[in-house]
Amino acid sequence: MSILPASAIKELQDALGPKGWSMEPDILATHNAEARGKFAGDAGMVLYPANTDEVAKCVAICATHGIAIVPQGGNTGRCGGAVANAAEVILNLRRMNRIIEMDGRDFTATVEAGTILQTLQEAALDRDLIFPLSLGAEGTCQIGGNLATNAGGLNVIRYGNARDLVLGLEVVLPDGSVWNGLSKLRKDNTGYDLRDLFIGAEGTLGIITTATLKLFPKPRHVATAWVAVPSPDAALDLLALARRDSGDAIAAFELICGFAHDMTVAHLPGLSAPLAAPSDWYVMIELTSSRPKDDLNEVLSDLLESALEAGLASDATLAQSEAQRANLWAIREGIPEAQGFEGGSIKHDVSVPVSRVPELLVRGMAAAGDLIPGIRPCPFGHVGDGNIHFNFTQPVEMEKQAFLDCWETLNRLIHDIVADLGGSISAEHGIGKLKLDELARYASPEKMKLLRVIKDAIDPDGMLNPGKIVK
Amino acid sequence: MSILPASAIKELQDALGPKGWSMEPDILATHNAEARGKFAGDAGMVLYPANTDEVAKCVAICATHGIAIVPQGGNTGRCGGAVANAAEVILNLRRMNRIIEMDGRDFTATVEAGTILQTLQEAALDRDLIFPLSLGAEGTCQIGGNLATNAGGLNVIRYGNARDLVLGLEVVLPDGSVWNGLSKLRKDNTGYDLRDLFIGAEGTLGIITTATLKLFPKPRHVATAWVAVPSPDAALDLLALARRDSGDAIAAFELICGFAHDMTVAHLPGLSAPLAAPSDWYVMIELTSSRPKDDLNEVLSDLLESALEAGLASDATLAQSEAQRANLWAIREGIPEAQGFEGGSIKHDVSVPVSRVPELLVRGMAAAGDLIPGIRPCPFGHVGDGNIHFNFTQPVEMEKQAFLDCWETLNRLIHDIVADLGGSISAEHGIGKLKLDELARYASPEKMKLLRVIKDAIDPDGMLNPGKIVK
Repeated sequence: MSILPASAIKELQDALGPKGWSMEPDILATHNAEARGKFAGDAGMVLYPANTDEVAKCVAICATHGIAIVPQGGNTGRCGGAVANAAEVILNLRRMNRIIEMDGRDFTATVEAGTILQTLQEAALDRDLIFPLSLGAEGTCQIGGNLATNAGGLNVIRYGNARDLVLGLEVVLPDGSVWNGLSKLRKDNTGYDLRDLFIGAEGTLGIITTATLKLFPKPRHVATAWVAVPSPDAALDLLALARRDSGDAIAAFELICGFAHDMTVAHLPGLSAPLAAPSDWYVMIELTSSRPKDDLNEVLSDLLESALEAGLASDATLAQSEAQRANLWAIREGIPEAQGFEGGSIKHDVSVPVSRVPELLVRGMAAAGDLIPGIRPCPFGHVGDGNIHFNFTQPVEMEKQAFLDCWETLNRLIHDIVADLGGSISAEHGIGKLKLDELARYASPEKMKLLRVIKDAIDPDGMLNPGKIVK
Repeated sequence: MSILPASAIKELQDALGPKGWSMEPDILATHNAEARGKFAGDAGMVLYPANTDEVAKCVAICATHGIAIVPQGGNTGRCGGAVANAAEVILNLRRMNRIIEMDGRDFTATVEAGTILQTLQEAALDRDLIFPLSLGAEGTCQIGGNLATNAGGLNVIRYGNARDLVLGLEVVLPDGSVWNGLSKLRKDNTGYDLRDLFIGAEGTLGIITTATLKLFPKPRHVATAWVAVPSPDAALDLLALARRDSGDAIAAFELICGFAHDMTVAHLPGLSAPLAAPSDWYVMIELTSSRPKDDLNEVLSDLLESALEAGLASDATLAQSEAQRANLWAIREGIPEAQGFEGGSIKHDVSVPVSRVPELLVRGMAAAGDLIPGIRPCPFGHVGDGNIHFNFTQPVEMEKQAFLDCWETLNRLIHDIVADLGGSISAEHGIGKLKLDELARYASPEKMKLLRVIKDAIDPDGMLNPGKIVK
């Protein structure tokens, strides 16, 4: 049963044909589900347009009937940005999954928005190229969603966020017209930057239907090291040294606290501690290069030697085989899973200026300890982006639920510190429904006003993803 | 004599103090002048605010009196974006020229908008860092203007356009309020991308007062080669090869036609032809690296050997000394000057997808030859950005003025071809006053409408740089 007007349903069904929509409860359930279970969607109809023209038709029909559309990709978002209510329809891009073109001289791929990220990664690799966006949900998430949320992930330090990987977009606008900004240009100064306005707008200004993306040469060499560092402060000096001495060839630079390391090695099968002596802090560094001949192990070992001499590191080991490298990555990637063995976790998606990471850690850990004595901080992540996964594991003796009940309170404490350090309360995941109030709390009135006037200018009737980013 | 209301003049004078304004005809003349002499400004007052607060005051006072403001940096723009009429005031940022902070761990510089580009370049070098934006006017142009026009220049292939070099902005809005977006964050997904909206907006949406910019490690090594290539098509394959085999260490990749090379070597004193045999097309490649040890000459000579084997190059020479390198750059940089010896030149600021450069050249040269028999095409420039300086030198026997009278007609011919190839009629210089009609001609109605609604939303009363970008 849908509360949508029957005439609107009929028009949409006629426009899209039998494959182009569903009102089956079982199918709707998957689209109404939300990754973290924080929100329950209630949409009664999902649309599956097959091409841009059909997307435009859907938008136009819905606009006529005053029905708002919630665009949805792989539905892996972390902030409820793709959750719809009963008065709205979900427009899912999954049928638009063609890789339209890949060009090894332009280093570009033009893809429809419903293309699965991993599918594009693999297609690029087949041509000795890479599309460097990489994140946990890559087997499920879609390019359109990646762009709508300006996804981050693992390779930001080298290749930037999703925004940095886009040359052009095609977007269906709230009135059903189509902006064809599907440019392959590296230089174009003809008016306001519309492209970057739609990227990260979480589907509130337009529906991204196609994108032209940047590709890069596939690395031929990789070198990976696990380094014990005396402090986060030293890790930052090591980062600056490594940027310089590697020729900006850093593919990953991850800070890992001793607790995260110890716990992961203890709980996950088959992992071994990379270094003999324990340390409070580690850094994992990976360099890559597409040169035919490039001794990255020598580059990495030279720079680590400089770091040891300068007191920026106390010990280090280079992966000497693919198995050793896999072990290092398994530790880094296994941290969230290992945290599960130690009870409840409270997490944050925050960033600060790179140079303020040490202060964030000191102040954040102290504040958390004051709030919940015995709490076990478990920070790790992309220190080169200022984007620490500031996770906290519950105290050993505490009731899990009692700990998780502190989620909002601890978030607020950490967000206050982040704001004080000039940081962001949403580094990677966006605002969606989840952080509407947090955004309004931390953003300046000038910023909130600009967001509002832009939304009202481009979507004056609130037809696209209402109630996300701005209320 | 100014036609501005006396009360407004008085308020502005009081707000800024004696150093903060001028109505001297001689001084106004420099601000009313326009780089190419295509437009004559007629403003009767120029303001020199000393800080953001004073900029905000100026904007608020002018808004009250309904006086529009034309923001101006070094006044080196190529499209009349900083030209003001008698009813407007010029707000020049030159007193706001402080480098507020430079951070070697964040790899950032925070500077006021009036900072001269070259001053910032030099300050970065003092710390073994670089700010890679580099262009002809760098001794005069200001960072604020560079950002307002999203300047391009020499290093785009490696480091991107001005937009790609910005982390945060402070902007005075049309109502005199200040948006503090002076972030140092590498990841921040909290709402629409306001930063990139103000970058490239040519002062029509807000006045950029301060910016936080990205710095990079200073290169320790450089290798430069001059390569004869059989065709622009081969140059593109060489580019792809060079990106891959250098590990994306390309700092410059410039295509130069044989005519440009021959003419420059002939006319400018002290230059010598790098290669013995003539060629219709050359490429100049430069690699840089900040690694302590890096044999870039070997990397470059290996990749050139591969190119020779693959038929992508017919001859090549590596600069073996700083003097040889200087000779190569002097040829490349001397082309516009040398063109002067051959009479009049008609120029374009266009870009196309990298892969379409050969087609642009073929079609553009043919069309120009049809229009003006004997015309001598002189294309050169940033082929890696798809941004060829598509210059044309007059026929030998033609009257210079008769040739220059064809400027608009030839521009239109070339722009039509560029548009057909998915290119841009303003790759680097922006729209300003100069290309208002061209923009309206080539942009889609959907794009023009989006530009209009954004302008109206953020500057509803048209107080900032009216008549630029949108009418």
